[in-house]
Amino acid sequence: MVKKIMNDPKDIVDEMLEGFVFAHKELQWFKEYRTVAVKERKEKVGLVALGGSGHEPAHAGYIGEGMLDAVAVGNLFASPSPDQILKAIEAANRGKGVLVILKNYSGDLMNFSIAKELAEEENIRVESVVVKDDVAVQDSTYSTGRRGIAGTVFVHKIAGARAAEGAELEEVKVTAQKAIDHIRSIGISLGTCILPGLKKPGFYIGENEIELGMGIHGEPGIRKMELKSANELAETMVDRILEDLDYRKQEVAVLINGLGGTPQMELYVLTASLKKVFAREEIAAYRVMVGNYMTSLEMAGCSVSLMELDEEFKRLLDKPCMTPALRIQ
Amino acid sequence: MVKKIMNDPKDIVDEMLEGFVFAHKELQWFKEYRTVAVKERKEKVGLVALGGSGHEPAHAGYIGEGMLDAVAVGNLFASPSPDQILKAIEAANRGKGVLVILKNYSGDLMNFSIAKELAEEENIRVESVVVKDDVAVQDSTYSTGRRGIAGTVFVHKIAGARAAEGAELEEVKVTAQKAIDHIRSIGISLGTCILPGLKKPGFYIGENEIELGMGIHGEPGIRKMELKSANELAETMVDRILEDLDYRKQEVAVLINGLGGTPQMELYVLTASLKKVFAREEIAAYRVMVGNYMTSLEMAGCSVSLMELDEEFKRLLDKPCMTPALRIQ
Repeated sequence: MVKKIMNDPKDIVDEMLEGFVFAHKELQWFKEYRTVAVKERKEKVGLVALGGSGHEPAHAGYIGEGMLDAVAVGNLFASPSPDQILKAIEAANRGKGVLVILKNYSGDLMNFSIAKELAEEENIRVESVVVKDDVAVQDSTYSTGRRGIAGTVFVHKIAGARAAEGAELEEVKVTAQKAIDHIRSIGISLGTCILPGLKKPGFYIGENEIELGMGIHGEPGIRKMELKSANELAETMVDRILEDLDYRKQEVAVLINGLGGTPQMELYVLTASLKKVFAREEIAAYRVMVGNYMTSLEMAGCSVSLMELDEEFKRLLDKPCMTPALRIQ
Repeated sequence: MVKKIMNDPKDIVDEMLEGFVFAHKELQWFKEYRTVAVKERKEKVGLVALGGSGHEPAHAGYIGEGMLDAVAVGNLFASPSPDQILKAIEAANRGKGVLVILKNYSGDLMNFSIAKELAEEENIRVESVVVKDDVAVQDSTYSTGRRGIAGTVFVHKIAGARAAEGAELEEVKVTAQKAIDHIRSIGISLGTCILPGLKKPGFYIGENEIELGMGIHGEPGIRKMELKSANELAETMVDRILEDLDYRKQEVAVLINGLGGTPQMELYVLTASLKKVFAREEIAAYRVMVGNYMTSLEMAGCSVSLMELDEEFKRLLDKPCMTPALRIQ
């Protein structure tokens, strides 16, 4: 079924952003650059994210107090251009430098590196960190090394809180990198998604099959497997994460992220299953977030992200933020 | 495709609620009653909602400061029992009486009327209002008279703010009823949904077809029609609402509600289309909310709700609330 609420598919990103800033009047939109930014300019280190569209609410949904300052929005599942990224950097800059939070996709990194040069010609200090939280595969269709997926939301929150409390550019970067080092994610996909304007999906998942570790653009994961119970899925996902980083006997933040087409009911059932696995592994859940935080259009499935917490991370995680997609007070 | 993240389908509601209270530690769960409530007890009029599950985040997602105090959760698309509703009333009662916000479904109303009698035997004052915002059809599969759908979220917000500022039971009821009188909604469905445990949907929508006015349990709407552009859909939906209540030249709150399977991208495209229709009809959007507020499992589609605003409603709408699914500060 290819039924979508849209007009001309070529206008879908612009129209989405028009609707987005109509609903979120506290944000502004640089239309020709497809760049969204805060209106109110505070003197602090600026925070920028970028990425293709189709992952809403990521990333423009995380613009606001205590999180990001500007986001460059690419075409569907495609990197924004260097001039878009430059515009976001300019919009986020308050004279204290800008940290760009990248997910590890080759296109994002390449276009960012050009934008960084251009920004530095304008005497804007630019630093970056690269999120690669997905433990599924080492290299992938669009990445050399691990992919960045929903764990990125934790990086936005932690770095955003650090910038909001007045830290300098280098300090915000160090904290963001520390967050990245403590975050791991894994996804499962139950169904496919179709890019607006196309007639069929770019990949398939069988009738009673799921794919463990599929990327948020439908990139291949670890393996296809039979759909199992929520309890078994939770075990499989946590086991794969623990093979990579040992969260046992640690306090963690947990993100159970829907990919777009999976109802909240199922995400909360998986949450209950994770609770059992955490009890067995002596993992203490300090904060649990459940919802559609970084999606793949209407794809059915979810990802689980864990972040190990120390006192600094708990303090930063608990600091207020007020954005369209995440509000903590 | 019947692929769901679940264990035994008969446990899905209990497991969902277990996950829900694990994620939202500020809430408590009366397990044997499938009733969720605030932990902190403030002296104020209590607010209760009830309904079948499968509509998450409705209604338990609206429990918290400035909105509801307790929710009775029924089986999938089924009314909670009188003893569940009684438990929610007891949990919400602080000695100032309890207002129960009902949606107009026969089962909900019948079970509530029994619960109300039982509560009054315990000397709890109980009042109720009935939301019937859906302009699609006069009578329906599960209702005599109009159905209550996503506009209910506005009633929770307005009544919640009124109760939070210390109004008495009768005053909260009057304000809630005034809200109901000023809210109208209409939905469109693009795809079906399958109840966990079943093998196929209870209703069908054709390949290139949508249903205008379908209910949130798949009840028949006004008519099946060809899928049109977002601009045309926005016009059709607003026109149908305006036939019923004239919002022209008024200030309104707008809720663009996803039914579960529709990506945010499409909801925001529809938002941009609505912006155009509002401009033409001189409707001023004071607040615009976009997201999955009252769903039908993984159904694709959305609803649009309008609430006419006066100064009292603007004040109450802007008051802070802090719940899992709606946060305003």
